[in-house]
Amino acid sequence: MRRLVAHKAKSLITNATVSLLNPHRQSSSPSNYCSRLARFFTSLPSDTSMASHNPLSVDSLNPKVLKCEYAVRGEIVSLAQNLQQDLKANPGSHPFEEILYCNIGNPHSLGQQPITFFREVLALCDHPTILDKSETQGLFSADSIERAWQILDQIPGSATGAYSHSQGVKGLRDTIAAGIEARDGFPADPNDIFLTDGASPGVHMMMQLLIRSETDGIFCPIPQYPLYSASIALHGGTLVPYYLDEATGWGLEISELKKQLETARQKGIAVRALVVINPGNPTGQVLAEENQREIVEFCKKEGLVLLADEVYQENVYVPEKQFHSFKKVARSMGYGDKDIPLVSFQSVSKGYYGECGKRGGYMEVTGFSPEVREQIYKVASVNLCSNISGQILASLVMSPPKVGDESYESYFAEKDGILQSLARRAKILEDGLNKLEGVTCNKAEGAMYLFPRIRLPNKAIKEAESLKKAPDAYYAARLLNATGIVVVPGSGFGQVPGTWHFRCTILPQEEKIPAIVSRLTEFHQKFMDEFRD
Amino acid sequence: MRRLVAHKAKSLITNATVSLLNPHRQSSSPSNYCSRLARFFTSLPSDTSMASHNPLSVDSLNPKVLKCEYAVRGEIVSLAQNLQQDLKANPGSHPFEEILYCNIGNPHSLGQQPITFFREVLALCDHPTILDKSETQGLFSADSIERAWQILDQIPGSATGAYSHSQGVKGLRDTIAAGIEARDGFPADPNDIFLTDGASPGVHMMMQLLIRSETDGIFCPIPQYPLYSASIALHGGTLVPYYLDEATGWGLEISELKKQLETARQKGIAVRALVVINPGNPTGQVLAEENQREIVEFCKKEGLVLLADEVYQENVYVPEKQFHSFKKVARSMGYGDKDIPLVSFQSVSKGYYGECGKRGGYMEVTGFSPEVREQIYKVASVNLCSNISGQILASLVMSPPKVGDESYESYFAEKDGILQSLARRAKILEDGLNKLEGVTCNKAEGAMYLFPRIRLPNKAIKEAESLKKAPDAYYAARLLNATGIVVVPGSGFGQVPGTWHFRCTILPQEEKIPAIVSRLTEFHQKFMDEFRD
Repeated sequence: MRRLVAHKAKSLITNATVSLLNPHRQSSSPSNYCSRLARFFTSLPSDTSMASHNPLSVDSLNPKVLKCEYAVRGEIVSLAQNLQQDLKANPGSHPFEEILYCNIGNPHSLGQQPITFFREVLALCDHPTILDKSETQGLFSADSIERAWQILDQIPGSATGAYSHSQGVKGLRDTIAAGIEARDGFPADPNDIFLTDGASPGVHMMMQLLIRSETDGIFCPIPQYPLYSASIALHGGTLVPYYLDEATGWGLEISELKKQLETARQKGIAVRALVVINPGNPTGQVLAEENQREIVEFCKKEGLVLLADEVYQENVYVPEKQFHSFKKVARSMGYGDKDIPLVSFQSVSKGYYGECGKRGGYMEVTGFSPEVREQIYKVASVNLCSNISGQILASLVMSPPKVGDESYESYFAEKDGILQSLARRAKILEDGLNKLEGVTCNKAEGAMYLFPRIRLPNKAIKEAESLKKAPDAYYAARLLNATGIVVVPGSGFGQVPGTWHFRCTILPQEEKIPAIVSRLTEFHQKFMDEFRD
Repeated sequence: MRRLVAHKAKSLITNATVSLLNPHRQSSSPSNYCSRLARFFTSLPSDTSMASHNPLSVDSLNPKVLKCEYAVRGEIVSLAQNLQQDLKANPGSHPFEEILYCNIGNPHSLGQQPITFFREVLALCDHPTILDKSETQGLFSADSIERAWQILDQIPGSATGAYSHSQGVKGLRDTIAAGIEARDGFPADPNDIFLTDGASPGVHMMMQLLIRSETDGIFCPIPQYPLYSASIALHGGTLVPYYLDEATGWGLEISELKKQLETARQKGIAVRALVVINPGNPTGQVLAEENQREIVEFCKKEGLVLLADEVYQENVYVPEKQFHSFKKVARSMGYGDKDIPLVSFQSVSKGYYGECGKRGGYMEVTGFSPEVREQIYKVASVNLCSNISGQILASLVMSPPKVGDESYESYFAEKDGILQSLARRAKILEDGLNKLEGVTCNKAEGAMYLFPRIRLPNKAIKEAESLKKAPDAYYAARLLNATGIVVVPGSGFGQVPGTWHFRCTILPQEEKIPAIVSRLTEFHQKFMDEFRD
């Protein structure tokens, strides 16, 4: 049976491809999925019938928008969504029963449960009139009720339905600053905190501030999280790459930074900021403190703003590594607020909480002059404020229950269960990938991803090229069609030219991981058999 | 006593101003408030001590950011916040006891209560594990429990903590589309809905899409809501003004549109879109259907995208006017989806719900080609999705309880109470303003604001000019200092040159309105007495 269905899926691809090469031949399956698939494999433009009636053609749009790409939710995901609809409409039509979205760090979508205490507090803040009802005592923990009262006291008029200060509710920023202080052992100022709808708007805000034209460059790791390339493209700047060294576990070498900075400057690019993602996305490495010191020193010397993406600060899976914030590192080197402009991004979407749908986060902005700060405030104020539930949640993740609180034990058990399980899943997937022919995969020391390198046979590369696809995009599409597993091609993140990778989250439920490894293994074996040189 | 304190406040202004004119003279009150006030009245640059150590000077920022202004949360609000701190630190130090924020449409901040049903559903969706507990029946209405189940069913895996589809949860978009259909009597497609964190991100997205350079123009009403001028500045385009006619109740004349379009084209500006705010912000007028038809026709003929800001669709206070969506008007004229590109913005922040802090909203995007739609989708996907609570709330406001539902009566009473009271408040304020010397104020037919014209004596204008302030900004600052009432100077919205206005919300609690009118009256009388020519 499985073989039969696999054959059908393969013929679907073949037919779609052939029908495009021979447009007069009818595809045997003219479904939406099929035409989508066909477009994926050939990059045919979609329906243009409306263009002639419409004042707005795609060529007349902002070219920066046209240039922007975002692979994590790109073509492969559209393809997966169509496959999912197809599966629903025609059960059994594919050699798998469900689509496994390993393309995005979206834990709850794969079954991870929220932290109970956090949700209790959110619910109570949403509907405070139940706070003093007797039934509430039976439904909610005592410390969640207490915390909700505290939070409502911090919000002017207890109005969770009101716009807050453009940087976020002051009392919640106090809590977050205290959390940062407790984490780092150095002072944090609530006036430095800008609460944002997830980390992304903060990144956009900084790019908007820093980029004047295409001769302004932003240093980004390669591979990078494509939010950065997308945001730089949208704001019309230039991404200046620095390559992480795969051979040394995605090491960040200062010599590479120096070399690339020199090259960029020779091209007339004014490099304005350095993005560091720690723990790494998509690469999963956790930087050593010594390495972070070198980076701080480099930014200081070269006059770069340090943009520290620290959204995976709670996601560290190996005992030999620890997360250190860049601010802590800079302060421990003796650099004060006036010495180095530094922005740290944090999000409620990652960590053990994984509350992506709440869109909470903040940036801690230090080392900027008051005039520059005023400009950041102005841009924040144009959008009024971030959502209050997200603000509350950001304060909660920076100030979770403490030993002795009623919820502490259940909170700790939930947190620890999630993080331990993620560590085990990362290890099993890593081991499984390393067993595949031509595949090597660095350890996920942190974050939520593996980024294996796949050495593809020349024949597969040629096949992809003939379909005008990047070889890793072709591999990812074939993997999806054969297994229902959605991964993101390495070309969406950037990689050393001539190497191919994909990013796969470690988030599917633990009991599904062995099956994923076998499906991957089986697919990979067949793929290699098909194309082996 | 009141006179004494008023005198003190006035001397505070005078001292601050004098101390800046004579920098060697010590101000008698060197508080933060005072220095802020001094800066407001003189536009002195703030502390620049950091600039020399820092790679990032304000001159090196994106000039588009520097150019952007957002009056609603501008200098007058900073001034008010400092006053508020001062009041807290030194009670009795000013001739009023509280700051009344009439600068922004933020109903809950002034005591408006949320709609109970909406909050019940939000709380249950935040913490669904209580849904089947017996205590929950005692705390929540039966239909809120039922609705929460329905919504959770619409969300894949019931995961309110997961990123949704980049346009928003499909099931919630289905609900919203059904609500639009019920409102308009014309079909709405859930695939046309893009859920957003309030309406602002949708506006930014469209500006980002449409503006290529400063020779791209966006038609905006003057006066306008400064989100538009800010967004156009941030994206580097040109605001092409069309003036609303104050004499005819802020009428929108097609002849004015034609004239301004001609002028813009002669300057080499490619006008790409027309923004209409209906009901008007800050002007409060509700467009007549016939006028809307003319606007649709004009956009159609001139090849303009129609950007319809319809966030005040529930806020209509006069029996002779009714809200009609531009999509309904276009469809009723026989224009189908392919005939006219039209974007309608809606928000959970306004209406009778006023849930600003939830940051929910949507745009309905019709009449765009699939390729252009794909670009909008791509930009939306870079930000992953809007917050799920805001998405849920957007579905609720477009599908509130119906006759026969358990919550219907209380829901209707809450809604009707708020809207009736807003109508009464608008009328009392309008009448009060019209009694002031040299002030005329059009009716607030809808929205949440009054925008009176103030005819200032020449002496007052000269005094403002000598302080390098717009006369209406000077008036607003003096009003704030005398009464604690925060209004936004008309210059932040645009106005016919040589005329002066301010925007004042109708949102303070109804019982406070008479006192506001007396304080305004008393202040205005004294101001006129001080400066009368």
